[in-house]
Amino acid sequence: MDMYHQKIINMAYIDLQNDLPGIRGPMVYRPETGKPLNELAEILLHDENNTLSRGERELIGAYVSSENDCFFCQNVHGAMAQYYFGWDMPILDALKKDYRSAPISEKLVALLQIAGKVQQSGKSVRPEDIDNARKQGATDREIHDTVLIAAAFCMFNRYVDGLGTWAPEDRQVYINRAKMRAEEGYANVNLHK
Amino acid sequence: MDMYHQKIINMAYIDLQNDLPGIRGPMVYRPETGKPLNELAEILLHDENNTLSRGERELIGAYVSSENDCFFCQNVHGAMAQYYFGWDMPILDALKKDYRSAPISEKLVALLQIAGKVQQSGKSVRPEDIDNARKQGATDREIHDTVLIAAAFCMFNRYVDGLGTWAPEDRQVYINRAKMRAEEGYANVNLHK
Repeated sequence: MDMYHQKIINMAYIDLQNDLPGIRGPMVYRPETGKPLNELAEILLHDENNTLSRGERELIGAYVSSENDCFFCQNVHGAMAQYYFGWDMPILDALKKDYRSAPISEKLVALLQIAGKVQQSGKSVRPEDIDNARKQGATDREIHDTVLIAAAFCMFNRYVDGLGTWAPEDRQVYINRAKMRAEEGYANVNLHK
Repeated sequence: MDMYHQKIINMAYIDLQNDLPGIRGPMVYRPETGKPLNELAEILLHDENNTLSRGERELIGAYVSSENDCFFCQNVHGAMAQYYFGWDMPILDALKKDYRSAPISEKLVALLQIAGKVQQSGKSVRPEDIDNARKQGATDREIHDTVLIAAAFCMFNRYVDGLGTWAPEDRQVYINRAKMRAEEGYANVNLHK
C-alpha cells in the first residue's frame, strides 16, 4: 500500500468495499454510475475536439472545486491544470485566490467569471456575463462547455464530500499522478491503479 | 408546433440551434455530452435494479430541483413522481414545502434530509444524517444513490438555468409527458419528440 492509499483524513460514511480515495471509491463501488460519470469527464476535460485547451478546462474544474471547498477535486484537477500549463502549484494557488490577476487570457478570465456564477446557482448567470465572454472572443460552444464543466463539478464535489470520502493530504501525490491521467484520460481507465 | 414548443419564458443565452425546452435544448446542441448525461439519469432514476422505487428517486430529484429553484426540472421530475405515486400536483407542492409532514415513509424523509444537505454542499452532510437514515432502514446503496441523485440534480439544474433555457409555464404540459418518459426512460430517447 503506497502513500496514496493511506487513509489520512477519514473514512467514507458508507462501506465502499474498497480503500480508494476521493471519487474513485464510490465509482468503483457503483460502476454502473461510474461509467457515465467518467465518460462525461472525458468529453468535457480530455477530448481533443475542443477549442478550449485541456489546461483551460481543467482550470475551470479546479476553480469550481476550490469554490466548493472540495479538497480532493481541487487538488486532482489543479495538478492537471498545472501539468498542462507547465505551472508550479503556488501560481495555481494565486489563480484560485484572484484569477483576474493571473497570467491567463482575458477570455479565460471571462469564462471563469461564468463558472463562478454557475457554482453559486444556475440563475446567478446573467446576460452581462455571457456578453462579456463574447467580447473576449468566447464562442457559444465554449460558453456551453464552461457552464456544463462548472455544473458537473458541482456534482462531482458533492458526490465526493457528501459521502465523506477520504483524500491524501500531500499535494505531491496529486502532482505525481497528473501525467498518467493526462495520457490516459478519464474513460475506460483502471480506477484501482 | 404544439404548446410544448412555444417559447413562453425566454430564449437561451447561446444559439442552441433548436427550440427545445429545458435540458433538451443543450442536450441536442451537444449530443456528445447529452449521451452520458442521459445514461446517468437512466441508471439513477429509471433502472429497475434498485431498492428505491422510481417514484422515490424522482421525488428526490424534484425536491432538490425545487430547492435550486429550477422551474423546468422540478416540474418534469415532480410530474414523474406524481405519475409513479399516483398523486395529484397539490400534494407534491405540499411535499416540497414540508416533506416531513407528507404521506411518505420515514426512510424517504431521512433520505430527503440527506438530499437537502447535499443541495447546500457536500460538506453539509453530517454523520448524524447518515445514522438517521440507517435507523429508518436505508441501506448503504440507497444512501449512495440518494447522494448521487441530489448531486446530479445540482448539475442538471445549473446546466438548465446557467444557459438561460426556456420552459413551458403550464404544468399540465409536464404531466402530459410523464407517462411517455416513464415508459421510455432516459437513455437512447428521441429528444426532439
